[in-house]
Amino acid sequence: MSKKNAFYAQSGGVTSVINATACGVIETARKHKDKIGKVYAGRNGIIGALTEDLIDTSKETARAIAALKHTPSGAFGSCRYKLKSLDESRAQYERLIAVFKAHNIGYFFYNGGGDSQDTSNKVSQLSKSMGYPIQAIGIPKTVDNDLPLTDNCPGFGSVAKYVAVSIREAGFDVASMAKTSTKVFVMEVMGRHAGWIAAAGGLAAENESDAPHIILFPEVAFNKKVFMQRVKHCVKHYGYCAIVVSEGARYKDGTFLADAGSVDAFGHKQLGGVAPVVAQMIKDATGYKYHWAVADYLQRAARHIASKTDVDQAYAVGKAAVEFALKGKTAIMPTIVRTSNHPYRWKIGEARLARVANVEKMMPKSYITPDGFGITQRCRTYLSPLIRGEDYPPYKNGLPQYVQLKNIAVPKKLKDNFMP
Amino acid sequence: MSKKNAFYAQSGGVTSVINATACGVIETARKHKDKIGKVYAGRNGIIGALTEDLIDTSKETARAIAALKHTPSGAFGSCRYKLKSLDESRAQYERLIAVFKAHNIGYFFYNGGGDSQDTSNKVSQLSKSMGYPIQAIGIPKTVDNDLPLTDNCPGFGSVAKYVAVSIREAGFDVASMAKTSTKVFVMEVMGRHAGWIAAAGGLAAENESDAPHIILFPEVAFNKKVFMQRVKHCVKHYGYCAIVVSEGARYKDGTFLADAGSVDAFGHKQLGGVAPVVAQMIKDATGYKYHWAVADYLQRAARHIASKTDVDQAYAVGKAAVEFALKGKTAIMPTIVRTSNHPYRWKIGEARLARVANVEKMMPKSYITPDGFGITQRCRTYLSPLIRGEDYPPYKNGLPQYVQLKNIAVPKKLKDNFMP
Repeated sequence: MSKKNAFYAQSGGVTSVINATACGVIETARKHKDKIGKVYAGRNGIIGALTEDLIDTSKETARAIAALKHTPSGAFGSCRYKLKSLDESRAQYERLIAVFKAHNIGYFFYNGGGDSQDTSNKVSQLSKSMGYPIQAIGIPKTVDNDLPLTDNCPGFGSVAKYVAVSIREAGFDVASMAKTSTKVFVMEVMGRHAGWIAAAGGLAAENESDAPHIILFPEVAFNKKVFMQRVKHCVKHYGYCAIVVSEGARYKDGTFLADAGSVDAFGHKQLGGVAPVVAQMIKDATGYKYHWAVADYLQRAARHIASKTDVDQAYAVGKAAVEFALKGKTAIMPTIVRTSNHPYRWKIGEARLARVANVEKMMPKSYITPDGFGITQRCRTYLSPLIRGEDYPPYKNGLPQYVQLKNIAVPKKLKDNFMP
Repeated sequence: MSKKNAFYAQSGGVTSVINATACGVIETARKHKDKIGKVYAGRNGIIGALTEDLIDTSKETARAIAALKHTPSGAFGSCRYKLKSLDESRAQYERLIAVFKAHNIGYFFYNGGGDSQDTSNKVSQLSKSMGYPIQAIGIPKTVDNDLPLTDNCPGFGSVAKYVAVSIREAGFDVASMAKTSTKVFVMEVMGRHAGWIAAAGGLAAENESDAPHIILFPEVAFNKKVFMQRVKHCVKHYGYCAIVVSEGARYKDGTFLADAGSVDAFGHKQLGGVAPVVAQMIKDATGYKYHWAVADYLQRAARHIASKTDVDQAYAVGKAAVEFALKGKTAIMPTIVRTSNHPYRWKIGEARLARVANVEKMMPKSYITPDGFGITQRCRTYLSPLIRGEDYPPYKNGLPQYVQLKNIAVPKKLKDNFMP
């Protein structure tokens, strides 16, 4: 086998541990210099491949690459750019192959969610039909935890931990204030389609009286009357009410709560998130003083409170991707396989990309309590190990030391400027 | 000197380290059992004293009290309840003295902001005139960092650290996404009157291109035109723009930016915070895709990322308060005195309550850059040591282990039910 270079790119919304995966890919490739040449990263994801804007990761020190393991965000830039079907976007796929050929790239590692796995699969197919062999390995990443065939997705565990820690802390705060001041706290979390992240907030409640008292899932149609009854019940019995609401919370007819809310002075919709809408709704119905928070990017960038399980798994899928490639495999994705709950044990497995692509894993109904406001023991058993362990970044002068790479470009070899 | 009991209460908005102060008070009092009897805590702050609802902290184990040092919020409950002047509220002050007398309380420790120092001062005065001696010691606490005569306030350093860490992390995230997606990120932080907390965000930027690129202070009148120019400049030169905005950001005429914003479907004002208002304003003017976050209580409850300097100082002021009382002092507040910047050194000082009460310490003009969007080196020198050091709480199953006290009530001795 001639020595080929590797391509690695990050795709979609970044996470606090996607760089740990990059670290796993690059460190593992560096250990096999006899078989893998350089690792080229796509600047801003797949766009970097399409425009032949490649980053030469061999210019980075071992120390800088190691620091990726504790650095949130996408070190090479990510992008929201979906390649369509082969029929619609054939020129783009052919361009990818042309760039890979020009740079002697034989390994394609694409780190992202469902769309990325689909792209990887198509690259694999096309490389065969075009007669330029490329081993395409998809690597899972998504805070949404919605990829199939893997027990969980790297990136999710750390958001889950952030949300559980934050609502526990805010719950303690509100409990202190409730006698004369704030009685209701609403925290909005990510998850447009599935309630995995909101569910993780439920881990903070170990007793009935603990925050959060209510979780609003996208999976459960919002019923204002029942909700208000529950809020009043909590304030009456626990002194306060702490709520985690998914950005995807919706009414029975599918309307998002967030959309039902505010228009600004100019008549624009969607100014606010769902948290202020829910908070105001409670104020109107009950008069309770409220506070609300919208964590937004803070939750998925919060490397300072990352889950050690998550960091370990993120690194492991990167490492496994390279090892699979070295074994000659293609069109697969490393998965996380849970082998035991007590104690929690996991190992790396593999799934065929064709089976991963474009399948969304929803939260099982059995994970939500019958009243629709909480998580079941089964859900806890699933989620709990994913947030376990702390993996603190190094600090200097009170601030986490995250690495910014040099990101030196590989000289272009193709003459045409391709516009994606 | 006969052995008197002590009263301790928490006042106003809680912090992630006010319980460290409680720990300092109780542990130090327990070391002097020859001189101080029991420490009674006010349930829900001063309301507990007024209603004779006292908590017997001697029922808590040494371990539980030690755990207060790493537990956010107010363990005994706090309240937003201000005693007015002696003339207006004489019955309340007399009631306090009556409750203290009934429970043989000779030490009054009141842990809060400017109002609390004022109350402590009045208790001291009245106890003299009523012939029941009470040593009243105020203990500083406020995330707003606005108490005079102390270099800084316990509670502030940890919020400052949270804000600096969070905007650094979110900045990394946005930088990854900016090529094809989010270009502007707006994070709202506390500080209705002073920009101390917003300023702390500036610590995250060590280079010109680092987040945050813009800070909006309450001290600087908002100029939309200049602001938009700066936002565009940042996106052009750094690829993205990360903004920290104080909830107190305002126009020249004093109108809060937050108030100028949204009305909901029912015509209600003040639904949202200032972050969505600023984000939408940018979108309208530039078309840039944005994200925004409102940290709200998360920032002041975030014990998981507390500053070690802050925790140490919070404990120290509690300890010093008891030691001052044992030396026979009254009507004073322990302060933090900075003795050196390089290396950072501090010691405990004292200030007369009469000089502390009702004085707000504003941020010096020399701490804000001439363009009004950043912090000066002088500001950095002041702020930097306050966020230094990490002091992680213990974790179990991925979650911080915060203590919930038993909070057993002291049997009442007075017959009347006083309604505050």
